[in-house]
Amino acid sequence: MDANQPPLLAGIEAGGTKYVCAVGHQPDELLRETRFPTTSPEETIDQAVGFFRQAAAEFGPLRAMGVGTFGPADINPRSPGYGGILNTPKEAWAGFNVVNALRDGLGEPVPIAIDTDVNAAAIGEAEFGAGRNERNVAYVTVGTGIGGGILIDGQPLHGRLHTEIGHLLVPDFDQPGKATGVCPFHDRCLEGRASGPAIEKRWGKPATELPPDHPAWQLEARYLAAAAIDLTAAWSPDIIILGGGVMQQEHLIDLVRGEFHALAGDYWTLPPLDTYLVTPWLGQNAGIVGALAMARRLL
Amino acid sequence: MDANQPPLLAGIEAGGTKYVCAVGHQPDELLRETRFPTTSPEETIDQAVGFFRQAAAEFGPLRAMGVGTFGPADINPRSPGYGGILNTPKEAWAGFNVVNALRDGLGEPVPIAIDTDVNAAAIGEAEFGAGRNERNVAYVTVGTGIGGGILIDGQPLHGRLHTEIGHLLVPDFDQPGKATGVCPFHDRCLEGRASGPAIEKRWGKPATELPPDHPAWQLEARYLAAAAIDLTAAWSPDIIILGGGVMQQEHLIDLVRGEFHALAGDYWTLPPLDTYLVTPWLGQNAGIVGALAMARRLL
Repeated sequence: MDANQPPLLAGIEAGGTKYVCAVGHQPDELLRETRFPTTSPEETIDQAVGFFRQAAAEFGPLRAMGVGTFGPADINPRSPGYGGILNTPKEAWAGFNVVNALRDGLGEPVPIAIDTDVNAAAIGEAEFGAGRNERNVAYVTVGTGIGGGILIDGQPLHGRLHTEIGHLLVPDFDQPGKATGVCPFHDRCLEGRASGPAIEKRWGKPATELPPDHPAWQLEARYLAAAAIDLTAAWSPDIIILGGGVMQQEHLIDLVRGEFHALAGDYWTLPPLDTYLVTPWLGQNAGIVGALAMARRLL
Repeated sequence: MDANQPPLLAGIEAGGTKYVCAVGHQPDELLRETRFPTTSPEETIDQAVGFFRQAAAEFGPLRAMGVGTFGPADINPRSPGYGGILNTPKEAWAGFNVVNALRDGLGEPVPIAIDTDVNAAAIGEAEFGAGRNERNVAYVTVGTGIGGGILIDGQPLHGRLHTEIGHLLVPDFDQPGKATGVCPFHDRCLEGRASGPAIEKRWGKPATELPPDHPAWQLEARYLAAAAIDLTAAWSPDIIILGGGVMQQEHLIDLVRGEFHALAGDYWTLPPLDTYLVTPWLGQNAGIVGALAMARRLL
């Protein structure tokens, strides 16, 4: 250990299907990283704690931890339930307190900050990625689900709970009678129409098997553009970063810009769309880098 | 003048059709008020300045002023154009700086805060009305236009510019082929489908002439409920206050709650809808009371 080294930061991207854990002296320079499937709460937290204990033995004591978690979750630091997963289809996790379990497991008084996975990714991109030099950064992930968060002057927007933009209502752009929503709650919400499973249900094969000239992508772009307009109306961000598995289709972002232009109808005064609607610089690392940046904000 | 009296506050609700000016020692106790049509910028500001000079002669010097203005407007205090009206259909006002004109007219160094009319109304309701005891207060006005603002921990959400929820995209709830949007920019935005002029265009008579059992109201409620769901998804407020001329139809708020319940599909964990979706306590005074409260925040 070098006495002049910055303190050791810990981060978890606590996703619904996998956990990513990492340590580093800088949020964007990971010293060690591990990823494993999200199983039962006890088993998953045990694995995370094991990783961090080993990392601490090797690199020195953890000074702070940031967690970006799947939700819904209680992320209000003033709440007695801070750090708890709320009512979720992942039933074993409902009511489980991630922060308390980590604190108990680590056995050390490490300060822990928790926020949504999308707010963590927004922080990562704001500090080290596409959102640098922007005051108000929106991050949207489009994958198995759809979620989003916004930073206003660098701080995540928390309302009563947290934003849930996957359940924005969107116009019906499917052909009449062809709608294929996958949300069990809503006929016309964003996640039900534009998530990875929605694409697969509509076209009969996974998004990764649809060629770039398939009509699926124009329709997908139109739904995502509608969402971007709603976020412009509701949040007025400086930049909207679209990430997640579905956005790894490299041709998609340009289609979204085109559909945004058509739907927006010259109403909005905005920066050029190729600087307003962008993909993440950090790619799939936005969340874990953001979790470490959340830890650094605790110092 | 009583030396122990609180300082004199000034407020303007600077609407697109009328200006309301008032002074008071408390935001919710108006000592004097005037209202007049919004005409040219010079004439309108002259009238406002005349009112405030006279009020100051009678009640003592103004200590601070709050302005809630129609938009779009530059409400960023760090901007060199702070207080300016931006590109608006009211062409004479585009580029006119309201704050500078008021400061020049008053001839006194009175601190002036400006925000959108809907953020001012949100502040009024948060401090003195339906939003008391709530951390995150959303205010929506439904009238000639539709606008909305939100306070997070009492502070208005400002993004790059300000929110413009009238241009949220909404699902098409009209009968096929019967859509009658009035927005010149968008086929399916909230203002185009649910503002007063949209109701009048769809049914051939003004909203005030439609009886409570007219089908217009169920459809109106459905559009407003969709907007309330989008704001729940994007902002996660503690309360949504629906005001403005159209909401003066007393039966409408209950219809909105019913449609919200149907569209929300049990997804959201929310307070009881009769405490979540409400009408303003201050009625048409929310904006001017909020403007005076903005002034008090400057002290």
